[in-house]
Amino acid sequence: MFKKVLIANRGEIAVRIIRACREAGILTVAVYSDIDKEALHTQLADEAVCIGPAKSQDSYLNTTNIISACVLTGADAIHPGFGFLSENAKFAKMCKECNIKFIGPDYTSIELMGNKAEARKLMKEAGVPVVPGFEGTIYNEDHGIRIAKDIGYPVMIKASAGGGGKGIRVAFNEKEFRVGFNTAKAEAKACFGDDTLYIEKFVQRPRHIEFQILADSYGNVIHLGERECSLQRKNQKVLEEAPSTFLTEKLRREMGEIAKKAAKACHYENAGTIEFLVDKDCNYYFMEMNTRIQVEHPITEMITGIDIVREQLKIASGETLLIKQKDIVLKGHAIECRINAEDPTKEFMPCPGKITELHVPGGMGIRIDSAIYCGYKIPHCYDSMIAKLISFGKDRNEAIIKMKRALGEFAIGGVKTNIDYQYSILETEEFLKGEYDTSFLGEMKVKNNA
Amino acid sequence: MFKKVLIANRGEIAVRIIRACREAGILTVAVYSDIDKEALHTQLADEAVCIGPAKSQDSYLNTTNIISACVLTGADAIHPGFGFLSENAKFAKMCKECNIKFIGPDYTSIELMGNKAEARKLMKEAGVPVVPGFEGTIYNEDHGIRIAKDIGYPVMIKASAGGGGKGIRVAFNEKEFRVGFNTAKAEAKACFGDDTLYIEKFVQRPRHIEFQILADSYGNVIHLGERECSLQRKNQKVLEEAPSTFLTEKLRREMGEIAKKAAKACHYENAGTIEFLVDKDCNYYFMEMNTRIQVEHPITEMITGIDIVREQLKIASGETLLIKQKDIVLKGHAIECRINAEDPTKEFMPCPGKITELHVPGGMGIRIDSAIYCGYKIPHCYDSMIAKLISFGKDRNEAIIKMKRALGEFAIGGVKTNIDYQYSILETEEFLKGEYDTSFLGEMKVKNNA
Repeated sequence: MFKKVLIANRGEIAVRIIRACREAGILTVAVYSDIDKEALHTQLADEAVCIGPAKSQDSYLNTTNIISACVLTGADAIHPGFGFLSENAKFAKMCKECNIKFIGPDYTSIELMGNKAEARKLMKEAGVPVVPGFEGTIYNEDHGIRIAKDIGYPVMIKASAGGGGKGIRVAFNEKEFRVGFNTAKAEAKACFGDDTLYIEKFVQRPRHIEFQILADSYGNVIHLGERECSLQRKNQKVLEEAPSTFLTEKLRREMGEIAKKAAKACHYENAGTIEFLVDKDCNYYFMEMNTRIQVEHPITEMITGIDIVREQLKIASGETLLIKQKDIVLKGHAIECRINAEDPTKEFMPCPGKITELHVPGGMGIRIDSAIYCGYKIPHCYDSMIAKLISFGKDRNEAIIKMKRALGEFAIGGVKTNIDYQYSILETEEFLKGEYDTSFLGEMKVKNNA
Repeated sequence: MFKKVLIANRGEIAVRIIRACREAGILTVAVYSDIDKEALHTQLADEAVCIGPAKSQDSYLNTTNIISACVLTGADAIHPGFGFLSENAKFAKMCKECNIKFIGPDYTSIELMGNKAEARKLMKEAGVPVVPGFEGTIYNEDHGIRIAKDIGYPVMIKASAGGGGKGIRVAFNEKEFRVGFNTAKAEAKACFGDDTLYIEKFVQRPRHIEFQILADSYGNVIHLGERECSLQRKNQKVLEEAPSTFLTEKLRREMGEIAKKAAKACHYENAGTIEFLVDKDCNYYFMEMNTRIQVEHPITEMITGIDIVREQLKIASGETLLIKQKDIVLKGHAIECRINAEDPTKEFMPCPGKITELHVPGGMGIRIDSAIYCGYKIPHCYDSMIAKLISFGKDRNEAIIKMKRALGEFAIGGVKTNIDYQYSILETEEFLKGEYDTSFLGEMKVKNNA
């Protein structure tokens, strides 16, 4: 096992990783930007190294400074958390070249799954369902229309080099296609300098359901069941639950096996997530693989009892995965609410600032993963998520009741938060019935008092 | 189910009960002394009523004011928590007469189990092992010596009307008996106005192991396994764990059945605890029954998944206990550390004061039951326990690792606490081996830095 791990991240995930290291008897090195000098991760780690100014580019994305901090402190591994450098294949490669273990998959797997077209091709070859589409060259508008007709409307026109929702159009008919094709082409050219497009079926009102994977370096792959992540605003997950109310046991088993197949196809190692789009008829399509730990990993931990970050450390240090698929029994129900410093009444505008009062909920069935404390100043330059509130109950109803109780007593003074907004989601009929898809939150009205 | 419950208590247990009520959809009324105006329980409840000045006698023990608050707010039941009025049969009776449901057993059961000699007699009749002893009249010193000889040294001389450790002497031989008999008699006379004594076998270096009972008003009684509470200082529990490392499955089953027998013998209803002394040869003796919820109930909740306070509410409202004995499966291991505002280097002297900084641990396997927040002023007039830190792991080793991690990151500024002292207990060889008894903590040296 590692002696010392450097955590190339900040906020609650850095604290989460420090905890896992400490429980494994591993020393920790925090890195921090100068604005994060008083941050919890900086204070909790055994050592802390300043790696630059507040701007991410200069600190948390500054690979040279991070590698230097690692060499300086004698850490033998780096945990990248999520975001920042976690899916940066170059950084993972750089670590390897410096003889520092990157706690995650090999850089080749990151590279492979990071390229959407490549990943799609690989999955198709491996027998993993992908959204029906056309990957060849599209010569012109009329050629595109013939392809769209073959696939069947509605279709999605996407920039091959795309990302962040840019260069994407949806067309329900030929007329919309003509407009969409040309605007997407122009946008792709402008944004990515490459106007190559591809066309795929537009899955209407899908659910976003993802499977947690653990894979060791000896080819052992298991899945830990799914997470239901359809509650999103502008492609940002807001509230997640596990298991999904939508999956039958049969579908869970089937998709789980497909997810393992996907991980094996890219020779995956460590923890990863296979994201699927699922339509109302239970057709599921590979969307992408996240080659890192995810924000919502705790809900899987609650229903499986497996500490995923601890497993990451074990796998990265070369241990064999001792948990077998048959050992995985999903028990109870877990919900995670992402607590953000933002103003739901002002289009969820981030609200950084100083926390002047704080009461964090506790008691039976409540888990908190956060990096805040009373007096902490939330900086303006990073993500607005400040805490994850996780509830666990023997069934979904109990998990909901506990979450509502906990949200009700969560008090954060000094900054605006989405606590009341989260509460209002839990009160909707759709949520209570478990009948929602990725469009739901976008259509839900935000109450004025929320 | 009740519509509104008044909580006749303060601190973390009041918060605990508010949580259970909220999850059950019951409105809550807090009562508070004037020094507790800013206390968390006062703030969290739906309503709060001031019941008098800081001194317990004038507020939390002021039965008239509490009943008045109940009538005033229209609460239909009172939860007494632990301490204060929880084992006051007169108060329970008063509630009954006022048509307010006392959430606990009938006053007759409290009365019965509150009288040590009566309880002992009842248990003996019911076939529950009690410490061998003599309950008849002891005429004089010489008569006492004959009895002591019959029982066999060492013996304990106890005031029948005793309590709080007063009027108790241990004698290992005749000489010690003569001295002890007379001093105990004098002390009993002075403390209780009654010099009646009784003699029982002195159990050397026992373990304190207790069984959690749930009993409904229809005669259904189950036990939820045991708690190991041998880590005590001056008869105050410091750290508890469940299950006990000492019990075999066979002994657990046997003692559990005896505990149920004890509860049945006093027609018990609601949650209660049967405390046993267990000697090194696995002989166990009924010590007493606590006819209320206990401080350490969360560790049982963690390993059974049963919300004991919620069950209390259900039972009190007349519901049938739906959980059967065969449904109780102990899973994993839980530890509770009582966090007190006290100075371990100064004989654990209470250290009230204002909390100026606070970081409460979180993450997987950590539960916090507390009533503190940053800026809270711990009053001088109540118990020094300010929080309960509970860890849960799949086995004892994991629970210990998580507890050490959590204690390590628990930061309370402004007042002295026993956090480091708790940490030092977890590092002793005796604790790690699970080989300790009620004498252990008293003999353990308190480190200067603790």
